[in-house]
Amino acid sequence: MRQIKAQTVIISLVGIVLSGTVFFHLAEGWSWLDSYFFTVVTISTVGYGSLVPTSALGKLATTGFIFVGLGIFAVAIQQFAVFQMRKREEHTEWLIGHLGH
Amino acid sequence: MRQIKAQTVIISLVGIVLSGTVFFHLAEGWSWLDSYFFTVVTISTVGYGSLVPTSALGKLATTGFIFVGLGIFAVAIQQFAVFQMRKREEHTEWLIGHLGH
Amino acid sequence: MRQIKAQTVIISLVGIVLSGTVFFHLAEGWSWLDSYFFTVVTISTVGYGSLVPTSALGKLATTGFIFVGLGIFAVAIQQFAVFQMRKREEHTEWLIGHLGH
Amino acid sequence: MRQIKAQTVIISLVGIVLSGTVFFHLAEGWSWLDSYFFTVVTISTVGYGSLVPTSALGKLATTGFIFVGLGIFAVAIQQFAVFQMRKREEHTEWLIGHLGH
Ligand SMILES: [K+]
Ligand SMILES: [K+]
Repeated sequence: MRQIKAQTVIISLVGIVLSGTVFFHLAEGWSWLDSYFFTVVTISTVGYGSLVPTSALGKLATTGFIFVGLGIFAVAIQQFAVFQMRKREEHTEWLIGHLGH
Repeated sequence: MRQIKAQTVIISLVGIVLSGTVFFHLAEGWSWLDSYFFTVVTISTVGYGSLVPTSALGKLATTGFIFVGLGIFAVAIQQFAVFQMRKREEHTEWLIGHLGH
Repeated sequence: MRQIKAQTVIISLVGIVLSGTVFFHLAEGWSWLDSYFFTVVTISTVGYGSLVPTSALGKLATTGFIFVGLGIFAVAIQQFAVFQMRKREEHTEWLIGHLGH
Repeated sequence: MRQIKAQTVIISLVGIVLSGTVFFHLAEGWSWLDSYFFTVVTISTVGYGSLVPTSALGKLATTGFIFVGLGIFAVAIQQFAVFQMRKREEHTEWLIGHLGH
């Protein structure tokens, strides 16, 4: 998984979130905000259930977004967490270095 | 996990989704679409809660599908995400190679 | 993660599921089946929301079970999935070996 | 992921849970307990849906907490599970050592 470039991960994540937002806005008639909220809540597997597709097309497409989106989301989130914690560690080391004088 | 063949992963995933769909159609009396939707929503851990088993058998079987299905789903989704992003990277390299001329 | 014995993983998983079942039966007054169902649905992160603790103690304990139980569940499920798929591969090889004659 | 210090992981986890609790208390007007409960239930991806943000700000911020919090939570939970099971194994070995006499 290490070999996949950060750029590829980000493009994949933005692509799947955008596709989901547009699709559910059209297929289920939800607002842009709700369609975006539903897409992120679904591919992150949080799945509140406050919004659930009611049409057959919406239900089938949701399982499709789950199959395609979950892995992309998981890879993206893991890379982002590691990046974020490394930055925090570097910041702490920088702080310790400066306070040590 | 790397040693498991893609074929084994796909057969396991199709097997668990099919078993769940048939089981919940019979045990809870849900439509084929809803039974399939519930199975995918459950083993992906999205769990909207729009459909929840009401019978004792359905509840017990759901925990069984969770124990058996979640790991299979996780392995399948991870392999699919890596495969998908590699394909995207190869496609980008191919594009860059052609645009470079 | 490989160094953890299968026995430790199974004891941890059974321990957390049993504790959750007994706790929610007492704290929220749910039936034994519902308390078991809620515990598995929670530590697997499926989280249907059909059962949610209403008392302050129940809500606090739920976050405790999430912190302690999710990692145990994830490790257990991953080991079980790998074990299960290896068994399937060995079975397939055995079948091929016999059909080859 | 191994290189990240336990201290960094704990500070990140406490930071994200505290931020979420304060934010949802202010933005959605939920009690401190409910805001804490919602934050843990969200970043663990359990997502019961018993509490869901209703304001546009709350929905957007929730997706932000999902993007930032999920990876931190996953790393923290994984490290905690391994730590916990190692402790149990050491305890078992200690017990066997003493019972062996
Ligand atoms: K859920
Ligand atoms: K969930």
